[in-house]
Amino acid sequence: MLPLTDSPIARDGKILILAYDHGLEHGPVDFEPVPETMDPERIFETATHDAVTATAVQKGVAEAYYPSYEDETNLLLKLNGTSNLWMGEHDSAVNCSTDYAAELGADAVGFTLYGGSNHEVEMAEEFREIQEGAREHDLPVVMWSYPRGQGLKNDTKPGVISYATRLGLELGADVTKVKYPGDPDSMEHACAMAGKTKVIMSGGSKTDDRAFLETVEEAMSAGASGLAVGRNVFQREDPESILDGLEQVIFEDATAEEALEASGAEAATATDD
Amino acid sequence: MLPLTDSPIARDGKILILAYDHGLEHGPVDFEPVPETMDPERIFETATHDAVTATAVQKGVAEAYYPSYEDETNLLLKLNGTSNLWMGEHDSAVNCSTDYAAELGADAVGFTLYGGSNHEVEMAEEFREIQEGAREHDLPVVMWSYPRGQGLKNDTKPGVISYATRLGLELGADVTKVKYPGDPDSMEHACAMAGKTKVIMSGGSKTDDRAFLETVEEAMSAGASGLAVGRNVFQREDPESILDGLEQVIFEDATAEEALEASGAEAATATDD
Amino acid sequence: MLPLTDSPIARDGKILILAYDHGLEHGPVDFEPVPETMDPERIFETATHDAVTATAVQKGVAEAYYPSYEDETNLLLKLNGTSNLWMGEHDSAVNCSTDYAAELGADAVGFTLYGGSNHEVEMAEEFREIQEGAREHDLPVVMWSYPRGQGLKNDTKPGVISYATRLGLELGADVTKVKYPGDPDSMEHACAMAGKTKVIMSGGSKTDDRAFLETVEEAMSAGASGLAVGRNVFQREDPESILDGLEQVIFEDATAEEALEASGAEAATATDD
Amino acid sequence: MLPLTDSPIARDGKILILAYDHGLEHGPVDFEPVPETMDPERIFETATHDAVTATAVQKGVAEAYYPSYEDETNLLLKLNGTSNLWMGEHDSAVNCSTDYAAELGADAVGFTLYGGSNHEVEMAEEFREIQEGAREHDLPVVMWSYPRGQGLKNDTKPGVISYATRLGLELGADVTKVKYPGDPDSMEHACAMAGKTKVIMSGGSKTDDRAFLETVEEAMSAGASGLAVGRNVFQREDPESILDGLEQVIFEDATAEEALEASGAEAATATDD
Amino acid sequence: MLPLTDSPIARDGKILILAYDHGLEHGPVDFEPVPETMDPERIFETATHDAVTATAVQKGVAEAYYPSYEDETNLLLKLNGTSNLWMGEHDSAVNCSTDYAAELGADAVGFTLYGGSNHEVEMAEEFREIQEGAREHDLPVVMWSYPRGQGLKNDTKPGVISYATRLGLELGADVTKVKYPGDPDSMEHACAMAGKTKVIMSGGSKTDDRAFLETVEEAMSAGASGLAVGRNVFQREDPESILDGLEQVIFEDATAEEALEASGAEAATATDD
Repeated sequence: MLPLTDSPIARDGKILILAYDHGLEHGPVDFEPVPETMDPERIFETATHDAVTATAVQKGVAEAYYPSYEDETNLLLKLNGTSNLWMGEHDSAVNCSTDYAAELGADAVGFTLYGGSNHEVEMAEEFREIQEGAREHDLPVVMWSYPRGQGLKNDTKPGVISYATRLGLELGADVTKVKYPGDPDSMEHACAMAGKTKVIMSGGSKTDDRAFLETVEEAMSAGASGLAVGRNVFQREDPESILDGLEQVIFEDATAEEALEASGAEAATATDD
Repeated sequence: MLPLTDSPIARDGKILILAYDHGLEHGPVDFEPVPETMDPERIFETATHDAVTATAVQKGVAEAYYPSYEDETNLLLKLNGTSNLWMGEHDSAVNCSTDYAAELGADAVGFTLYGGSNHEVEMAEEFREIQEGAREHDLPVVMWSYPRGQGLKNDTKPGVISYATRLGLELGADVTKVKYPGDPDSMEHACAMAGKTKVIMSGGSKTDDRAFLETVEEAMSAGASGLAVGRNVFQREDPESILDGLEQVIFEDATAEEALEASGAEAATATDD
Repeated sequence: MLPLTDSPIARDGKILILAYDHGLEHGPVDFEPVPETMDPERIFETATHDAVTATAVQKGVAEAYYPSYEDETNLLLKLNGTSNLWMGEHDSAVNCSTDYAAELGADAVGFTLYGGSNHEVEMAEEFREIQEGAREHDLPVVMWSYPRGQGLKNDTKPGVISYATRLGLELGADVTKVKYPGDPDSMEHACAMAGKTKVIMSGGSKTDDRAFLETVEEAMSAGASGLAVGRNVFQREDPESILDGLEQVIFEDATAEEALEASGAEAATATDD
Repeated sequence: MLPLTDSPIARDGKILILAYDHGLEHGPVDFEPVPETMDPERIFETATHDAVTATAVQKGVAEAYYPSYEDETNLLLKLNGTSNLWMGEHDSAVNCSTDYAAELGADAVGFTLYGGSNHEVEMAEEFREIQEGAREHDLPVVMWSYPRGQGLKNDTKPGVISYATRLGLELGADVTKVKYPGDPDSMEHACAMAGKTKVIMSGGSKTDDRAFLETVEEAMSAGASGLAVGRNVFQREDPESILDGLEQVIFEDATAEEALEASGAEAATATDD
Repeated sequence: MLPLTDSPIARDGKILILAYDHGLEHGPVDFEPVPETMDPERIFETATHDAVTATAVQKGVAEAYYPSYEDETNLLLKLNGTSNLWMGEHDSAVNCSTDYAAELGADAVGFTLYGGSNHEVEMAEEFREIQEGAREHDLPVVMWSYPRGQGLKNDTKPGVISYATRLGLELGADVTKVKYPGDPDSMEHACAMAGKTKVIMSGGSKTDDRAFLETVEEAMSAGASGLAVGRNVFQREDPESILDGLEQVIFEDATAEEALEASGAEAATATDD
């Protein structure tokens, strides 16, 4: 376990990851609302916002674009991922080795674990290799902990999310990213269940500014250490504004209300939807 | 085979393992009776009790918490394990390498073998690698020997438990952990079948103090070398008290009756249920 | 990501690959129109045309024929491939290691990824090893990105082709080869989706000169960096002529009309069909 | 191929292996006739009989007991094996590496091949690694060649046994252990089919002394090099007596009749059944 | 690609391989016509005939017998093979590593590829490793190219044989062994399709001398580089005689008629059938 206080992907122990692996995981459809977002440069520009503590991309995007931005954002290299052309049981290909991630200048590595999938055992063993490899390079490990599969009717049920954060702790993640379980009490339980592993909430699909900031405020109050967000930032015409708001809530202990006022994000939202 | 007399996970050849991998294997539900137990610190504190010869946890919990307790308890690193979100045939992911376990300061390693599972062959081969790797680090190997699968209607049948302890001997475990087969004669047979491999009984789900201590007394008289216990200790409000009793039975040759009197555990039980 | 401007498989950042792995992928049937084409020497002779920036073959053909042509054409070693005797789910055997490709003098390596196949995850992991191995040898990586499988009714649908080019970017290809999606707008979208990864169009089965050159003109105008072509060149009696035309369109910014006039290819076509 | 004349597991080119892997392969049930036999020490004591040229056990038994007997018997380390809790297609886990076997002081290694099983290909490849590893340590390789599987109605049919001995020769075993095919002519054929590979017969389940010794006499006359026996020795109250008889037949060219007279085994049998 | 002119397994670029892996592939039944042939020494004696350029056997036979014949015949070590007890999809176990083949003094290595089998991809990848390993030892590679599987009703159809020889070229074999496609034109096409890879015909099951020699003559005229033959030589009472005839046809450009007259093979045939 690496102390996040000193980690390049955190600021004062808080984290705001700009996630941008949608081109692999979801394909072109996620860039339709704001077509310019298909260009990784636009996202790296967005990532230069002070609020962003790391940018999460796949190997190819890191190779091609990160060298121009390495002084301006930290790299969280997502090591596995699979297209949604895949129709098989939930699984994720390991697309980058830990050694190569380190060579590309990664400040941390990310890995998706689909607990409950028929590939859970195999994925957990891949995680073992990546986690132990990351330790050799002193790289923090962020687990995308997303229970899936035949045994799960509802993958945001509180008990499932608390199990998801616990998997991060038990298997050796420094940070675990989960979906918001829907209410602050469940989030608090999930954070407590993670012990010393930090919990960050997943931004999910795009919502309006107020709803989004309120959820983040709830999550932070419940013990979360931050947020990993993609569409909820980059599918807006004005990502700066929502990042201003998120910075207030995550790093400045502001309420959503205060953040909205300070950033003027709400007004922007009106034209965004 | 390593002589347990000198082993850090035994005292006078007797063993009391505090097992705490429930967060992975069972999930949050096992912490509901005493919510504080979701915090590994609580368990490591409990493990500082003199009776506990080793604490069994998964890699992530060891990484995050063991450094603060390495002078106070011995680490039995459980190398495999799987969530119960898993709906497939009985199997267990190898979550930690032997080398990394040694690096984390493990005093012994643990491995679950599901004999009879359709993954038995694969698991036995994983065990081979771990056992031989552990020998290089002079680490004792504890096998959780739990027959499972389509051919088994009853996994605590005496013949099954005796087969389970024998698997530990044949495959090279130093200690084999099995469920109690229900009566002292069957336990004696199971212990004899294990030859020089030590047999410890699994604590199982929570029972009352008297019943629990009597079973442990029976097991010890039948030739067991101790106990690995989780819920039956940590799901009590007063784990110290039952550990006092277990210490009497396991290390001092006390009867359950004597232990109950000495430790006052029975009284505690009354308020616990 | 390697800058293609300096790449041996590009000229002024443009690419024309003569692909010749049909003997493996399709078998003898592809050589029936012009039986002499079963002889790799004929193809390597054709590849000495100035327009051809690289010749793509499997390991065995490279071993046996490339030494005589290494001063006259660049070698793009195709690392995987499978016969069409194969009746299983879309998959492709890795027939050559990256190290051996380098030893054979390859200037670049090629790899087919069937996104959407039930083997996608396995193929992506093979791609990882090849891509990272190629980086060690400073070899550009060309991905044949061909979505396939149960979830795909139409593998040249614009959305599919744009997803295909994106896979090349996300996974770390320098160049991605896709089928032409049918119209310039879709091709433009596919090229934009690829970011800094170059996109080349696949020549496909034989068409007449005008239709072929017009499609290539469309693709180039839409942002493609060139073409990988096999049958559409070697199944002609006069491959020189169509290569003259392609050279005009790809490297000289000529229209198809201009190229046809300059090369006299159209006349040749008349006798070719 | 290693010359057995000089081999530690042979005497004058003849072999009598005391096999004791029943605890793994069959479980406790094989020790019921003579309960003391569950203790490996009893078997190692039996193995000190002059007639025994090697004792075959799994890794765990070797680790725990062989150090006390290494001056008195030779170790044939059986490298694979599986419990009969296993309900899958015939297969056998590799429980010990060749290197570790050598480290434990093995004088030879053993491996079961189930020709005809759906795991035949995989097992043959495991055998390759073990056989080549054993060559590096100059260890003779004994194949338990037991055809099994859907295509085989009768696994002791002469043609099957001759195929079994041939597999030993073709794949590189020094000694091949097969079931007795039922008559001397078939055994002679099986031995001839093995070429320079020695053939030893499997002792099988317990029979009376006369029947057993007569079968061994037949096998030796037919060209066998000896016997690997477990239950037919250790399930007797007086294993010494039958070993006396076997010594006569295997090493002294005695007939069963002569051996029975000399050893008094027949009389013992009378009280044994 | 290694020049066969200098190859130890060729004479003047022509090849006659005496194949003897029938004990593994077919079992004892292939030795029934001439029982002495179950003894590898008989075959190695036969292989000392001047016509034989190499003897093809599995590892075990090479280990046990080749040391006595290494001055008299060249060793083509067949690296994979499977018993016909196997009832699964066409597959072949890799029974010998390339390194060990080199250590045993092999002059070349052989490998069976079942194109069209559901194991084609896996077998092609095994071939890659063997082919690249053989290159390190400067050993020629002979592919037994035998299309099989659900998609193939007739595995000697001309198109299939031409595809089979092409697979040898594409994947990097120096020599490809195929079944005779039935007529000289098809054989000529198959040889042309193989490019610089040499094609040898498989001897198949026993036929009479005239028919056999005529087929070989046809194959040689069609461009084949020789023959790999087993049963059609060793199932004869007088293998010398047919080898005399084959020597004429393969190395001396004789017609079958001339060869029959010179060798007197036809007369021998009369008593053979």
